[in-house]
Amino acid sequence: MKYSDKIQKTPSSFIRNILKVTDAPDVISFAGGLPNPISFPIEELQSSINHAIAENGAKLFQYSTTEGYLPLRQYIADKYKKDYGLDFDPQDILITTGSQQALQLISQVLLNKGEGIVMEEPGYLGAIQAFSLAEPEFYSVTLEEDGLNAEQLEQTLANNDNIKFIYTVPNFHNPTGITYSREKREELYEVVKKYDVVLIEDDPYGELRWNGEKLPYIGAGRLENSVLLGSFSKIVTPGMRLGFVITKNKELMHHINTVKQATDLHTNIFSQMIIHDYLTSNDLQSHVSKIINLYETQANAMLNAIAKYFPSTVKYTKPDGGMFIWVTLEEGTSALEFFDKAMEEKVAFVPGDPFYTDKTHVNTLRLNYTNSSPEIIEEGIKRLGKILYSLSAQEADRVAN
Amino acid sequence: MKYSDKIQKTPSSFIRNILKVTDAPDVISFAGGLPNPISFPIEELQSSINHAIAENGAKLFQYSTTEGYLPLRQYIADKYKKDYGLDFDPQDILITTGSQQALQLISQVLLNKGEGIVMEEPGYLGAIQAFSLAEPEFYSVTLEEDGLNAEQLEQTLANNDNIKFIYTVPNFHNPTGITYSREKREELYEVVKKYDVVLIEDDPYGELRWNGEKLPYIGAGRLENSVLLGSFSKIVTPGMRLGFVITKNKELMHHINTVKQATDLHTNIFSQMIIHDYLTSNDLQSHVSKIINLYETQANAMLNAIAKYFPSTVKYTKPDGGMFIWVTLEEGTSALEFFDKAMEEKVAFVPGDPFYTDKTHVNTLRLNYTNSSPEIIEEGIKRLGKILYSLSAQEADRVAN
Repeated sequence: MKYSDKIQKTPSSFIRNILKVTDAPDVISFAGGLPNPISFPIEELQSSINHAIAENGAKLFQYSTTEGYLPLRQYIADKYKKDYGLDFDPQDILITTGSQQALQLISQVLLNKGEGIVMEEPGYLGAIQAFSLAEPEFYSVTLEEDGLNAEQLEQTLANNDNIKFIYTVPNFHNPTGITYSREKREELYEVVKKYDVVLIEDDPYGELRWNGEKLPYIGAGRLENSVLLGSFSKIVTPGMRLGFVITKNKELMHHINTVKQATDLHTNIFSQMIIHDYLTSNDLQSHVSKIINLYETQANAMLNAIAKYFPSTVKYTKPDGGMFIWVTLEEGTSALEFFDKAMEEKVAFVPGDPFYTDKTHVNTLRLNYTNSSPEIIEEGIKRLGKILYSLSAQEADRVAN
Repeated sequence: MKYSDKIQKTPSSFIRNILKVTDAPDVISFAGGLPNPISFPIEELQSSINHAIAENGAKLFQYSTTEGYLPLRQYIADKYKKDYGLDFDPQDILITTGSQQALQLISQVLLNKGEGIVMEEPGYLGAIQAFSLAEPEFYSVTLEEDGLNAEQLEQTLANNDNIKFIYTVPNFHNPTGITYSREKREELYEVVKKYDVVLIEDDPYGELRWNGEKLPYIGAGRLENSVLLGSFSKIVTPGMRLGFVITKNKELMHHINTVKQATDLHTNIFSQMIIHDYLTSNDLQSHVSKIINLYETQANAMLNAIAKYFPSTVKYTKPDGGMFIWVTLEEGTSALEFFDKAMEEKVAFVPGDPFYTDKTHVNTLRLNYTNSSPEIIEEGIKRLGKILYSLSAQEADRVAN
């Protein structure tokens, strides 16, 4: 049996591969990107289930349209109007099986083998996976503390006319937790608008902000080839796998619809109707506020523990929202090696390696704080700190000898 | 903006494109492949929702594993053991977003651009769509009343070493309604086992049999590279988008898992847990029996009406189960032209064209009987018959002149 080239080029997820170890009850896991289950509005969803069935009966259980449930798409359009003043119609919106699926759909629509994608470095590993199936050429552009390096982006676009799209996570970036600054967004917009490329803004965490003000998107609402992705996974529930893709480019949307049909006909309509009922019967903002408070407390617990227990040579980001902190160890320290030692002490995280398309044995790693209590966070970081001090001592010995 | 070659080669669904016309309340539609909504076990599902939430709480709403919910995979394994004596383990099974998704996953795993697929002619249009995204070469093998032409299949496999898989729907085939005979299955097994190809048996309708006995699969359980697809769409609900892929080839399953991760992380766990609860808390067989009785009555209503209202020159299949009848008009009659006239009389069906990879203006068409009452079926077929007589008269005039 011979398999396709694309499957042999597609990495399987580091996070999912270590799930069996990290899921053991005695392991403190900062590895996944799981919402805290205490944030799921289970009672409200249960009453929405009953209400949606009472109102729509068999429609929840029948095949449905590829683009998704119209009232849900209308809700999304209205929300962007209210929150950002953006002018989207339901026909600009297609409901996907999680926003992960949108990445796969778009890359199928745009890419021939060998065509280019600009990736943030480091970038979301799930996007690297989804895009890999299209056998692209990845162009890495450095992600700085305020967003993509604009000069590098300009050079990359100018020198490579096979580039079809740029992939960004502008708010509370995965894996680094950074947020693109207002000035950087403007600067990037000025660069991107000169080129015939699609700009993807993937925004699953945007609502989860506890510091600073909501910022306008880079391209959404003003770039002709803008694609905006959103999700209900982080603010309601990921189990129902509901995300969405928004673009005002009608031809692009038509092609996305065709790939969606070919891929899974349509997104689970049962879940779409339930979520729609939930969103229109409850005060979403007050629910999101609770999640924000929870995550802010947990993020602060982790930041305080890092300050207390990690060597001062270790650098880390201080997110204004979202789910992740990005840690940079002393030069020469391998995060993979650190991971092995951490697992011996029953603490898990994601070494930086899978977030790069062309680097290994990096000295960076991702910590998630949303799925552990402040006490557990302190204990886990304490254990990690102890290992870091011993690695640091070993390194000092090595240098001295 | 330039789009990928693959999207430009992927047909969008005829059925979904005509949905707006065929969905009008005054149209009699034999076009879709929709289960009858009166067959959905809504009350039982509703109590399974409450039960599953009471038992599993937040787990229904959290991210989950790529391969799917273990108890559901165990249920599926046990069912095939009981029904067919097949020896599957949960690790041979992965839950997909409808069995449509399995088609897309498998073609991504197996096909490089230009590699070959053997398709039944005519064949399932959704499969043609899903496979087209991998830019394959299609090899059509004639589908006869008892299954694929074995000699043609052997020649096709012998002459084309780029063929990676064979796609079949052995029970109550879509679009023709035919079922592969026991002898033909044996004959095809003998052919396929000589070649290094995957045999896909897609079986969404297999449970819906009202005539004859359940037959063993062609390759499942005995061919090393066998892939069996199943679905809960036709026996419980399609709205939840739950299908599954089964293969004992571990390397193949590993790759399918990687593409599934990259595509949508995992299938809706909320729906998986609900369906599992439904399946284990109810007598599925008695529910399926009710669906079978319903569809048998509707199929007979359609067959009787065809016998009564269609010209005797029209040929059609007589299914032992499933959802479709395949109609062959007089040579030279275009089903597309017939479709336009039928829509004027507010009756819809699917012209044969989209079920072929390389033919148009065919004289065949697909009728669905599962989503209309016997009375509506009689009325719709009567209208179609009237048009057919007039087309036949025109043709006679044309020949006479």
